[in-house]
Amino acid sequence: MKTHPFDKAIKLTVQDDGTWLGHTAAPYANMVGPFGGITAAQALNAVLIHPELLGEPISLTVNFAAAVTAGPFTMQARAARTNRSTQHWIVEMIQAGQTVLTATAVTAVRRETWSLDEESMPASPLPDQVPLPKVAPPVEWVKRYEVRPIVGGLPEVWDASGHSSLSQIWVRDNPPRSLDFASLSAIADVFFPRVFIRRSTHVPVGTVSMTVYFHTSGEQLAQTGEGYLLGQARAQAFRNGFFDQTSQLWNEAGALLVTTHQVVYYKE
Amino acid sequence: MKTHPFDKAIKLTVQDDGTWLGHTAAPYANMVGPFGGITAAQALNAVLIHPELLGEPISLTVNFAAAVTAGPFTMQARAARTNRSTQHWIVEMIQAGQTVLTATAVTAVRRETWSLDEESMPASPLPDQVPLPKVAPPVEWVKRYEVRPIVGGLPEVWDASGHSSLSQIWVRDNPPRSLDFASLSAIADVFFPRVFIRRSTHVPVGTVSMTVYFHTSGEQLAQTGEGYLLGQARAQAFRNGFFDQTSQLWNEAGALLVTTHQVVYYKE
Repeated sequence: MKTHPFDKAIKLTVQDDGTWLGHTAAPYANMVGPFGGITAAQALNAVLIHPELLGEPISLTVNFAAAVTAGPFTMQARAARTNRSTQHWIVEMIQAGQTVLTATAVTAVRRETWSLDEESMPASPLPDQVPLPKVAPPVEWVKRYEVRPIVGGLPEVWDASGHSSLSQIWVRDNPPRSLDFASLSAIADVFFPRVFIRRSTHVPVGTVSMTVYFHTSGEQLAQTGEGYLLGQARAQAFRNGFFDQTSQLWNEAGALLVTTHQVVYYKE
Repeated sequence: MKTHPFDKAIKLTVQDDGTWLGHTAAPYANMVGPFGGITAAQALNAVLIHPELLGEPISLTVNFAAAVTAGPFTMQARAARTNRSTQHWIVEMIQAGQTVLTATAVTAVRRETWSLDEESMPASPLPDQVPLPKVAPPVEWVKRYEVRPIVGGLPEVWDASGHSSLSQIWVRDNPPRSLDFASLSAIADVFFPRVFIRRSTHVPVGTVSMTVYFHTSGEQLAQTGEGYLLGQARAQAFRNGFFDQTSQLWNEAGALLVTTHQVVYYKE
């Protein structure tokens, strides 16, 4: 069986000092450096495969400190605190002796409790009723996802005519791959920058910080399998060089798997 | 002039090794340990007063790793990466040699750009038209804030009758204090746990991780001064021991100052 490009991309090898050695992945290249989602997944993977790991991810915050250069990197993951059922991680990604990413993660052993999705999945046509987009940015990572925009796709004409930053999409790995925490953290970053949608104007952008809250379990992810996720994203504020975006991802059965937020630099 | 209790609470003194020495503040005590917002403000303050600080806060993530004990603490703040106009911080709070909080922050020198608040302030009665709540939890920190609940206040009867987690409040420091980044990061945590509002049921809870995005400047905060903030909070998902809450804070002039998110442990 051929290894999926995502599994190749997040592969880490343990080094003598307990840190992880990884390598950037050409199939997930962005305009400059890699797709942020794949870097987030590499950072989370340093926790997921760590011998000290307790439980499953609850939250992940990644801060993109500098451009990641094509080539090898070191991922340092340290359990700063381990409690009875929760664990707190600090992760740093290093290239040429310099920090290029900082991250924190919380993992926990969950127990079954009263549960409720307050934010319902928006009513949407089924994935096979939503055509693929006519335009796609000429970058590699975009080809690694099958994205079917329901509303708020990339503008076909950049005419400064936008009036809302809301997007709703169906999304899954391309080729399909059974969902897990690492791939879910990458998909959390799959939404195009809201400033493009809101303004129909192309400006230089870069995610500064992203936080992912996981409302799911490894078992539920395995059940979700290769199915599509319904993603929704919108901005709340654009102010002097930075905007936020707030997003949700549901599986086809309507379970809210992830709520995620990010703050993004924009130039003008 | 009498020092405001908030300024006393976030006071840090530099130590020989460059770390900060602080002390928990009885006026901000919660049921067990301090109000999470004051701990977040102490962590951010270690960055704000750091001699290497570049710019103003863009984002802050605090992870509450363990119960904070009444008494002294050490705050370690390290600039993991300094770029031309952005800076990435890692912060750890230590008590008795153990990590009790991890945090990351991004600061930046902002430039004026095209700006827009997409999320408008909800229409609301003016602060003086909204009465103070009839009930308040018997904890100290609640007395440090003037909160006027517009909708979604704490239940007067805990009868499991809730149907929405949405709250809207007017809020400011009590006594009033001119707003700054540190106080804003504390106010970001002022919303009661959404599970109380949604279920009208009292269960043990504790914030695990909180992220604050600042859409404001020190200048705008000074202009906001001692005015009220309109706060809005709601949950998106409650699942097997953890729920999220997503919140906004506007000033009286209607500018969105903060969008903030947290994930909270609940017992049953």
